[in-house]
Amino acid sequence: MPRGKFHAVLLAGGSGTRFWPLSRAKTPKQFLALASGRPLLVDAWRRVRRLVPVERIWIVAPRRLGAGIRRLLPDLPRRNWIVEPSARDTGPAVALACAVVAARDPGAIVGLFPTDHVVRDPRAFGRAVRTAASAARDGTLVCLGIRPDRPATGFGYLECAARAQLGRSVPVRRFVEKPDLTRARRFVRSGRHLWNAGMFVWRVDSFLDELGRTEPAIRRAVERHLAGRRGAWDTATRLSVDYAVMERARRVRVVPLDAGWDDVGSWDAAARLREEAGLGSSHGLLVESAGSVVFGAHRFVALVDAPGLVVVDTPGALLVVARRSSEKVRRVVEALRERGRSDLL
Amino acid sequence: MPRGKFHAVLLAGGSGTRFWPLSRAKTPKQFLALASGRPLLVDAWRRVRRLVPVERIWIVAPRRLGAGIRRLLPDLPRRNWIVEPSARDTGPAVALACAVVAARDPGAIVGLFPTDHVVRDPRAFGRAVRTAASAARDGTLVCLGIRPDRPATGFGYLECAARAQLGRSVPVRRFVEKPDLTRARRFVRSGRHLWNAGMFVWRVDSFLDELGRTEPAIRRAVERHLAGRRGAWDTATRLSVDYAVMERARRVRVVPLDAGWDDVGSWDAAARLREEAGLGSSHGLLVESAGSVVFGAHRFVALVDAPGLVVVDTPGALLVVARRSSEKVRRVVEALRERGRSDLL
Repeated sequence: MPRGKFHAVLLAGGSGTRFWPLSRAKTPKQFLALASGRPLLVDAWRRVRRLVPVERIWIVAPRRLGAGIRRLLPDLPRRNWIVEPSARDTGPAVALACAVVAARDPGAIVGLFPTDHVVRDPRAFGRAVRTAASAARDGTLVCLGIRPDRPATGFGYLECAARAQLGRSVPVRRFVEKPDLTRARRFVRSGRHLWNAGMFVWRVDSFLDELGRTEPAIRRAVERHLAGRRGAWDTATRLSVDYAVMERARRVRVVPLDAGWDDVGSWDAAARLREEAGLGSSHGLLVESAGSVVFGAHRFVALVDAPGLVVVDTPGALLVVARRSSEKVRRVVEALRERGRSDLL
Repeated sequence: MPRGKFHAVLLAGGSGTRFWPLSRAKTPKQFLALASGRPLLVDAWRRVRRLVPVERIWIVAPRRLGAGIRRLLPDLPRRNWIVEPSARDTGPAVALACAVVAARDPGAIVGLFPTDHVVRDPRAFGRAVRTAASAARDGTLVCLGIRPDRPATGFGYLECAARAQLGRSVPVRRFVEKPDLTRARRFVRSGRHLWNAGMFVWRVDSFLDELGRTEPAIRRAVERHLAGRRGAWDTATRLSVDYAVMERARRVRVVPLDAGWDDVGSWDAAARLREEAGLGSSHGLLVESAGSVVFGAHRFVALVDAPGLVVVDTPGALLVVARRSSEKVRRVVEALRERGRSDLL
């Protein structure tokens, strides 16, 4: 097989409700300028654009986001948008992307990257991706892993065979689902555990081979979908790529990524990034309201003796939430669903 | 002198910044539905409408409020709007009203009432006004006084010669400016001190006589203004009616008013009244946000773990303020003035 070229695949299928009311069905999290002044998706595009020409940048996204993507990424070649027919978790979406890229470039090495995260240092990101691409040449499936700076219980962990070093890959011994706090603390102390950031680099043929072994139903569903069989996609098993392949794959290695990664998991996290960028109180007027951050305001917003809040001001809805409670925003979304207020979702 | 008829004068000249951003130059506090579902001004109209025919209801208000008043009070006879040429405190405004009413009905007894307060019991209000009107027949200047239920330091007090009883008037010994907390506590204990609610009843001729004695410059300015002298109004001394007349008048009595009076002095007070009316959380969705109240929302508003706040949602500006700090809203207004944002004032 000839040495294939490197392609970047942006995964833009996420919906998510944690950033209500800014995130809506047609403007999911990756479309929002949560951290910098630019949408997360645009920052993701710029990161990979440093590494590959636009012809080899792909995006996987549902049909409803097409117009938004064309607006945000005018340079994306139109034939490089891979339509995700419906949300069936990351396993089928990644399989579809690999199969489509393989159809154009059978020996391609792909990097698959979520588009709703922050990576502060694009150069360090590029170095890690190049290291991973080298490691993937021989058919290894490579993850990028983040060194934990706290015992987070919201991420999966990669247990390495040895302490990982920057610029090197190490074998992954096993994947660990979201741990409890005790285990998470042990992982942080061990020095051999990295967060699974959902970023992968591999040869498309190697991945599809492994998928055919671990979840042949997904591989078949994708092939039949590409052959034009109606309804085939909806038979693909709903599984994350971790479950579907990585936990059972034969050769998996990880390259550590030390590039200021942040998954921006809540309004509180977004507020922290805003403050870091010096944008915390750029909207409106804060009087005795330290730690409060305003998002989305097109109006003048004044906070008085109202510290530690996130205020999200959109034309259709207003949210005021304590930063420490920002994961409870989903309760608002649930209530809106119960009330049938799809206009606000 | 023939026994004149009773006229009601609504004082609607106040501007005030405490209810920003709902209160603006053209929609001052009295135009807002802060407590019930109706603007305070409309409630004030209805209260006096029970006592006098519309021909004898007057309003003192600046020119800029004309359209708003016609909209809210369509039954007000157009010739009964007394234009306050510019804000020069209550002394000149009350003098102007008395002089204009006197020109139509020289022996009139007038009741002068602020329009930005709440009076929960209009019947009790009517009884107190009738008692006051009787007491005013002999030329006495009569105040309505509120029995204090707390040692408020934001009001003036009337020291009575004896304990005041409902349905009776008692002589006022002296007017006391806003006291400090120690004195306010003593006043509450004394049982002989009532809050000065800025409501007065008197014969127009008696008041104008006293004014001519205590502040002849104001009386002259009003007369020259009525005679059509340009600029005369602007020579009227800026004084409250208390300073200009009441503190130095010869015969002053007070009738206690026990009618659920509230001056609605802050967003916190308005929030209390909303809750009392069962309207506290009628807008939007409150999750773990006890004691928070939303005003003015035309959008869906969600509060999450954000208790004890007032949220004021207007098309041009949004305010989030801790109820306990609602008097600090003026700092926002000051900042807007400094920034030249008259569009928001």
